[in-house]
Amino acid sequence: MELKTVYRLVKGDLARVERQVRSVTEVDFPGLAELLKHILLGGKAIRPALTLLTARFYDYNLDRLLPMATSVELLHTATLVHDDAIDKSAVRRGKPTVNSLWGEDRAVLLGDYLFAKAGEFAALTGDLRVVRLFAQTLQIISSGELRQTFDAFNLEQSRQHYFERITRKTASLFSLSTQSGAILSQAPEPSVQALRAYGTNLGIAFQIVDDLLDFTGTEKELGKPVGSDLAQGTLTLPAMLLLERYPEDNPVRELFTNRDMPEIFQELQIKRAIETVANSAIVEECYLIAADYCAQARQELDLLPDKPVRKALEEIADFVVSRRS
Amino acid sequence: MELKTVYRLVKGDLARVERQVRSVTEVDFPGLAELLKHILLGGKAIRPALTLLTARFYDYNLDRLLPMATSVELLHTATLVHDDAIDKSAVRRGKPTVNSLWGEDRAVLLGDYLFAKAGEFAALTGDLRVVRLFAQTLQIISSGELRQTFDAFNLEQSRQHYFERITRKTASLFSLSTQSGAILSQAPEPSVQALRAYGTNLGIAFQIVDDLLDFTGTEKELGKPVGSDLAQGTLTLPAMLLLERYPEDNPVRELFTNRDMPEIFQELQIKRAIETVANSAIVEECYLIAADYCAQARQELDLLPDKPVRKALEEIADFVVSRRS
Repeated sequence: MELKTVYRLVKGDLARVERQVRSVTEVDFPGLAELLKHILLGGKAIRPALTLLTARFYDYNLDRLLPMATSVELLHTATLVHDDAIDKSAVRRGKPTVNSLWGEDRAVLLGDYLFAKAGEFAALTGDLRVVRLFAQTLQIISSGELRQTFDAFNLEQSRQHYFERITRKTASLFSLSTQSGAILSQAPEPSVQALRAYGTNLGIAFQIVDDLLDFTGTEKELGKPVGSDLAQGTLTLPAMLLLERYPEDNPVRELFTNRDMPEIFQELQIKRAIETVANSAIVEECYLIAADYCAQARQELDLLPDKPVRKALEEIADFVVSRRS
Repeated sequence: MELKTVYRLVKGDLARVERQVRSVTEVDFPGLAELLKHILLGGKAIRPALTLLTARFYDYNLDRLLPMATSVELLHTATLVHDDAIDKSAVRRGKPTVNSLWGEDRAVLLGDYLFAKAGEFAALTGDLRVVRLFAQTLQIISSGELRQTFDAFNLEQSRQHYFERITRKTASLFSLSTQSGAILSQAPEPSVQALRAYGTNLGIAFQIVDDLLDFTGTEKELGKPVGSDLAQGTLTLPAMLLLERYPEDNPVRELFTNRDMPEIFQELQIKRAIETVANSAIVEECYLIAADYCAQARQELDLLPDKPVRKALEEIADFVVSRRS
């Protein structure tokens, strides 16, 4: 399953979103223009696709949908820029990060600019409910990221805690994307809620797979180094399952407990954790849990009109649990 | 002239703004609540006062004004949090900064959260024009701050460049505060524009005095160390005038040119710059330039109805050029 095929119903409009995103780089301050060009081109565009697709069930009005689809893509990009600055990440999407090229300070300010630009596009929908949702989503994301800094290197986290965290930091933006598409297409309230829940479940599944790929992917596929989460002290589902299976002599426990071990030993522990996960049933278990969330996402669609777009949204759910990058 | 007296027309409502700001600290995530409590209490409240006061000319509707006054105060606070993280400042308003207590990463995320909260309050006005202005203002501020990072330690800057920079980074928020008060009180368009211009001119004067106080104030008065701008490589008006007056053997030139001099010598140059400015006519010259902008601000008010609030806004202009902290 390729995303390109899944997007066929909104292909032309996604190209228009891309043009709008590109137009954001046209500013008369060369320093800013350079940063914007570096960060704004590329990406899977899954969030804007969700906004456009979910709107296909009802009144598909591009004047309202294009700004919102642009808004969710900009919001997503802004959070990546700040995340990379905070994590001091060097590579993203196979390219050097903004912070690695221009410093963390400029990355922070660029992210602020993009949040504001995303907010402006949200306002261009002319729909205050959507603007409020946008602002609330950014609160949920940033407080989720903040929570993650408090949880770093903490081994005593429940699975529920993990799911709450990824719901905040990832699923909330998926749910903004789907819910805004529903609201802007004048969907009846039960449909808005069903598409919101579809987005949330899809986002959780997406993040579980993301967290697994940090163990099972390659740097080439991911566009960033594997094992980044462990290096940051972020306890994800695969690491939790690894801790449950091997309570003694566990590389994650070693890594999180002896934080002043030399870097070379840290890297060895990360490598050991990756290999152990890859050669265990943990991979399968994570995919099963993600698939469960995708099944829930698909189920939410039952309420919606039987239109071709339903199939596309089901396919996105399938893509999310089958993707390898 | 004390601000308390100037605010008398909106005193009770400013207290309500303060309560709304305080309510932002009531979140069920203790880590976030602690950060919010640290940063949200205190401050001169000049921006929310401007929103309330400018609305006094026309239809003073608190349902729309209170959220906006809260929004501008939160937006202001968010920019301070990010500024301090970027500048690695240790002290603000006489208290340790968020970044010094909890690290720059959390300061970035806290700022993001506050931007979003400010945006949510802007949306609560129910006025999309004001929401768009809010989002555009944050773009102007962050791109202004970004410009400042590109200008750092650059001696070849024109005065015009300086005025453009402070218009972006400071005056834009003053102008959002006044313009939104006008829009939300259904002011006729010429009055909206006059109050926008009042805010811009007032903000420029405010920042000139701020930049001067970085030379002439005391750490106790300012709540932060003096000479911070020079230490950051920010060329402000007093430093520009100092360069013009003493083209040779100039401490600012020394400091910006020999950036790898030992810290103790840097501090000596900063001290020398401060003393030279304080004992020269530069202080008076800066106040005169600031006073010019305040006169322009006052002049904009001529267009507005002859109500008691006009006097209050004139007094704020007087306060801005007479303040010592």
